[in-house]
Amino acid sequence: MPLAIDFLQTGSMADSTSKDRQEITFSSVPKAVVSRLSLYLRELQQLLGEGKQTVRSGELGKRLGFTDAQVRKDLTYFGQFGYPGIGYRSEELVQAIRHILGTDIEWRVVIVGIGNLGKALLGYKGFASQGFQIVAALDNDPKKMGTKLEGVKIHPITELKKVVRQHRARLGMVAVPAVAAQDVVDQLVDAGIDGIVNFAPVTINLPNHVSQVGVDLASELEQITFAVAKRLQMHNEA
Amino acid sequence: MPLAIDFLQTGSMADSTSKDRQEITFSSVPKAVVSRLSLYLRELQQLLGEGKQTVRSGELGKRLGFTDAQVRKDLTYFGQFGYPGIGYRSEELVQAIRHILGTDIEWRVVIVGIGNLGKALLGYKGFASQGFQIVAALDNDPKKMGTKLEGVKIHPITELKKVVRQHRARLGMVAVPAVAAQDVVDQLVDAGIDGIVNFAPVTINLPNHVSQVGVDLASELEQITFAVAKRLQMHNEA
Repeated sequence: MPLAIDFLQTGSMADSTSKDRQEITFSSVPKAVVSRLSLYLRELQQLLGEGKQTVRSGELGKRLGFTDAQVRKDLTYFGQFGYPGIGYRSEELVQAIRHILGTDIEWRVVIVGIGNLGKALLGYKGFASQGFQIVAALDNDPKKMGTKLEGVKIHPITELKKVVRQHRARLGMVAVPAVAAQDVVDQLVDAGIDGIVNFAPVTINLPNHVSQVGVDLASELEQITFAVAKRLQMHNEA
Repeated sequence: MPLAIDFLQTGSMADSTSKDRQEITFSSVPKAVVSRLSLYLRELQQLLGEGKQTVRSGELGKRLGFTDAQVRKDLTYFGQFGYPGIGYRSEELVQAIRHILGTDIEWRVVIVGIGNLGKALLGYKGFASQGFQIVAALDNDPKKMGTKLEGVKIHPITELKKVVRQHRARLGMVAVPAVAAQDVVDQLVDAGIDGIVNFAPVTINLPNHVSQVGVDLASELEQITFAVAKRLQMHNEA
């Protein structure tokens, strides 16, 4: 049985016994639960758009392919949100999840590398609606300097530190070729960024105080081929 | 403790008690383990590129920020790969992981939606090196019809079924706007596709025999804001 291996390492509760314990500390929430919070949030926002002010765990789960027990269990990490005989109040749960995810405040983001992927990220509608404001773009192609894409100005990477500080950006998305990724990441860290999403297909090294998520597009396909291969295996055994 | 909620549902071993049990059946491998297999594979390929024919679990883990125990535990789901006093043989483990992930054969992929994201996917170097061949692209912009991008021809979406079958594509990547996603997915299912990677920020419905992975780019950022918010919380408590 796989257990603690999935847990976000955010320190031990034992250190804060004498402190105020009213505030929830999410010291051991599995990454998969955090991923599902994003899915619940998106679905609740869609429900609100459909005018549904309340939703039961069974309905929320069904729309996402999860059981009602799983929805309840995931949310239990963070508190009590359901009302007997009613279910969840959509707007209230949206606000609660945004608070848990830290997206009830706006995050200022820079994108480094304005090739096709960088352009796609600049044009992606899903960021602004979730509280992420792209404040600047950086590239090293002289032809792109000073131009704007999707209303965002493109700066030379040599000015990265200045641009990050001027715009008070806290997150960076890295969409440069693999060979350039670590150098760009080092510059972002030096500029004081809090977190990095790395799209380059390479492992990057970061100090402990900077969070990272790596998006490996081939890995997404491998999740599927694994599932398909397993299905075929079962089929052959049947 | 979160447990079975993460498990890929690929049926029960109990159904096959009378069958040949030599073949490993991966009936209950957590999704997170499958994700990490992709990371191990990428790192092993990089090690081979550096001329390192063997690697110990500690070194492999260290390069990815995992413990040696976690590396060994993850691989134990699939068999015994280490050699006493040597560690893993890089090439052998690469082949084994590709077999487990199902990528020791080539997968033919179509991309639907050739906006910036679709273009980025067409140009992404990480697919071909992992065994994914993009055989066709589809879009509904008349100006793009018949043109080629990255050597791949763009067809009208109205010809989706024909194109998928002609090219014997088994996977589809969906990079169309959210409102169009379900319709495109239905067409891919109708064409007989085995799996779908959905980049549209919307939940899609699929029959059970088709696998899916959803890539929600805002969700990647939320993983990071969650981690940053937790760190600040710990800091404030300290």
